[in-house]
Amino acid sequence: MAVGQCDFPVMPSIAGITLGTACAGIKQTVRDDILLIHANEGSSCAGVFTQNAFCAAPVHVAKANLAHAPRWFLINSGNANAGTGVAGMQAALTSCEELAKLTGDKANQVLPFSTGVIGQLLPVAKITAALPNAIAQLNSDNWDKAAKAIMTTDTFPKGVSKSISIAGETITINGISKGAGMIQPNMATMLGFLATDARIQQPLLQQCLALAVEQSFNRITVDGDTSTNDACVIMASACSKAPEITADSEHYPLFAEALLSVCKQLAELIIRDGEGATKLIRILVTEALSDEEAVRVAKTIAHSPLVKTAFFASDPNWGRILAAVGRAGVENMVLEDVQLYLDDVCIVRNGACADDYTEAAGQQVMNQAEITITVKLKRGAATQEVLTCDFSYDYVKINAEYRT
Amino acid sequence: MAVGQCDFPVMPSIAGITLGTACAGIKQTVRDDILLIHANEGSSCAGVFTQNAFCAAPVHVAKANLAHAPRWFLINSGNANAGTGVAGMQAALTSCEELAKLTGDKANQVLPFSTGVIGQLLPVAKITAALPNAIAQLNSDNWDKAAKAIMTTDTFPKGVSKSISIAGETITINGISKGAGMIQPNMATMLGFLATDARIQQPLLQQCLALAVEQSFNRITVDGDTSTNDACVIMASACSKAPEITADSEHYPLFAEALLSVCKQLAELIIRDGEGATKLIRILVTEALSDEEAVRVAKTIAHSPLVKTAFFASDPNWGRILAAVGRAGVENMVLEDVQLYLDDVCIVRNGACADDYTEAAGQQVMNQAEITITVKLKRGAATQEVLTCDFSYDYVKINAEYRT
Repeated sequence: MAVGQCDFPVMPSIAGITLGTACAGIKQTVRDDILLIHANEGSSCAGVFTQNAFCAAPVHVAKANLAHAPRWFLINSGNANAGTGVAGMQAALTSCEELAKLTGDKANQVLPFSTGVIGQLLPVAKITAALPNAIAQLNSDNWDKAAKAIMTTDTFPKGVSKSISIAGETITINGISKGAGMIQPNMATMLGFLATDARIQQPLLQQCLALAVEQSFNRITVDGDTSTNDACVIMASACSKAPEITADSEHYPLFAEALLSVCKQLAELIIRDGEGATKLIRILVTEALSDEEAVRVAKTIAHSPLVKTAFFASDPNWGRILAAVGRAGVENMVLEDVQLYLDDVCIVRNGACADDYTEAAGQQVMNQAEITITVKLKRGAATQEVLTCDFSYDYVKINAEYRT
Repeated sequence: MAVGQCDFPVMPSIAGITLGTACAGIKQTVRDDILLIHANEGSSCAGVFTQNAFCAAPVHVAKANLAHAPRWFLINSGNANAGTGVAGMQAALTSCEELAKLTGDKANQVLPFSTGVIGQLLPVAKITAALPNAIAQLNSDNWDKAAKAIMTTDTFPKGVSKSISIAGETITINGISKGAGMIQPNMATMLGFLATDARIQQPLLQQCLALAVEQSFNRITVDGDTSTNDACVIMASACSKAPEITADSEHYPLFAEALLSVCKQLAELIIRDGEGATKLIRILVTEALSDEEAVRVAKTIAHSPLVKTAFFASDPNWGRILAAVGRAGVENMVLEDVQLYLDDVCIVRNGACADDYTEAAGQQVMNQAEITITVKLKRGAATQEVLTCDFSYDYVKINAEYRT
């Protein structure tokens, strides 16, 4: 169930980028579960990947192939190809080789991605059998089908598009993502695929993507579980007539901001579709000593099952928020300095419930579907925001029944 | 709902220790909610307390009063007196003063403890009004009533007793505890009260308790939320005829082991009664580089909502366990070295599902109410165990409805 309106937007085509989907029948036989994204010659490609020490076979392959000017993303849903050992690595490599055979490109120009159940061998024969269909479907207008093909427990497809004007010419950035559970991305979430027609060299694209991901996908959490398969990648086709984006060009900040904006919106859509989510919770920590400290406090709140169940119940149980701040591991924190707000209602001041706080005011905020928790630490000037969702019966239900 | 048999044991009296309960009507009016524990003159007292930066008012007072040879524990359930600012501190001090007036002792010889809802002012008048009743009830045989009076969302009272023989004389250690939610103790859990008739000086008793708590209460977690009120305290009445326990006596290891055993059993009872728990999960991490590393890996598994919901569903979804190990933040961990067992069934070996593993064998273990996860890291010689429980609909229900 989505929190708020999450209709799939009109996604313009990106010159030089085509997408094709097909049904390989990996877990279900009634929907497309593989996706190809192809970029024209002359494109550049950048990516960031999970920091889980046990990253999945396709992540190993994709990281290695990033150096070989990749032209293809090959994505499957329904099976994560993680915890599958040597056989899983072989399966990832084989799927790349089969695609290369069919297209005349090199196998190391394919980045493979998998999402779904961990620990089951990837049915590579099913995937390679479906590749010709996916290739036949390649088209620049398939962004909606692409977003649907990568879904697992997601309840709606996620897409964002943004165009900017540079020197009188348009640059467009499209992105799709999937999320739902095992979401505390650490370098990128599973999975974000972006494309742009901008002309930008690979090192700068990589730097720009890493910065954007750090402030977007790395600032959301559903359940604190970092996936083995997280990845966020972008291809830039260089087909726009706009001038090349270089590090010292006046246009770079504009492009970087647009990319960050797309990533932030995609990340927010993942939280709006968090497993079992009924509420979107923005946690804003201000007046922290450092960004790291602000993120640490925000994530401690975001991971607290007690806070998340209270939000599910629309219960302004601020003691649980305060207890989470207190156990965040921040040295020399002074309770009396901390202020706590639900939206613009001040709940805690001077180490206790604010004099002017009323349960009715807190309840009114809690009844909303979207709520901002603000924690002012009075220690410094750093501010960071983390997005999360509440913790409902349905989270337990979805994850208790995931493999059945 | 308790996991396993958790009948309250026969608790012998401890010479020099008396307990009295009464109903102050703090949250409910149908049960005793205050408890006094009194120790005779000549007793020693030790305690360890929460490391939550925002510890509750009574914790501040109890920590300060520990230096003044305390003779009284004054405990209330139904209200945590946390996040209550100056007024909360005044309430904790007032309750100690009132008890001192009634008994002729000094106020700083009273250690106050509170457990219940955070952020509501302690109804100190109700507590002081009930004190005479509690004093009138003081008796050495009230361990069962005492264990009941400190319960909050606990579903059964928790007590453990152990006697050892030293130089032909008996020393007994009794303990009671309460837990249920907001349980990731960090120094001690909310709340453990122990008493012994041993003769032992305060500094040694303190050292002995700290060591025992580190290996017992600090090795359990229900939801990763460290309470603002955690405390574990012990009084030693010195009434046993056994020789004094000194640091260099041959009897010290025996006493320390008995105290650790009592703490471990009390901690395990808390997990058996974890909010919504249907399963007791022992997480044993072996062959780690250090104890710290073993605990870190074990707690990452223990805090994973995905692992906990899979156990609730009796689903041997080992990929989630492996993913948790991978994100535990251990440097240079090698997936191929890790072995994973459910009881004695090997699931993961050489970075993938073990050749001889069958889903039927895994399922058989998962159907049990008590399960041991063993993770062998092949990095060193350290072993640590952490206890946790599963994550059920009832956890969400209990915590969504806690204040209603």
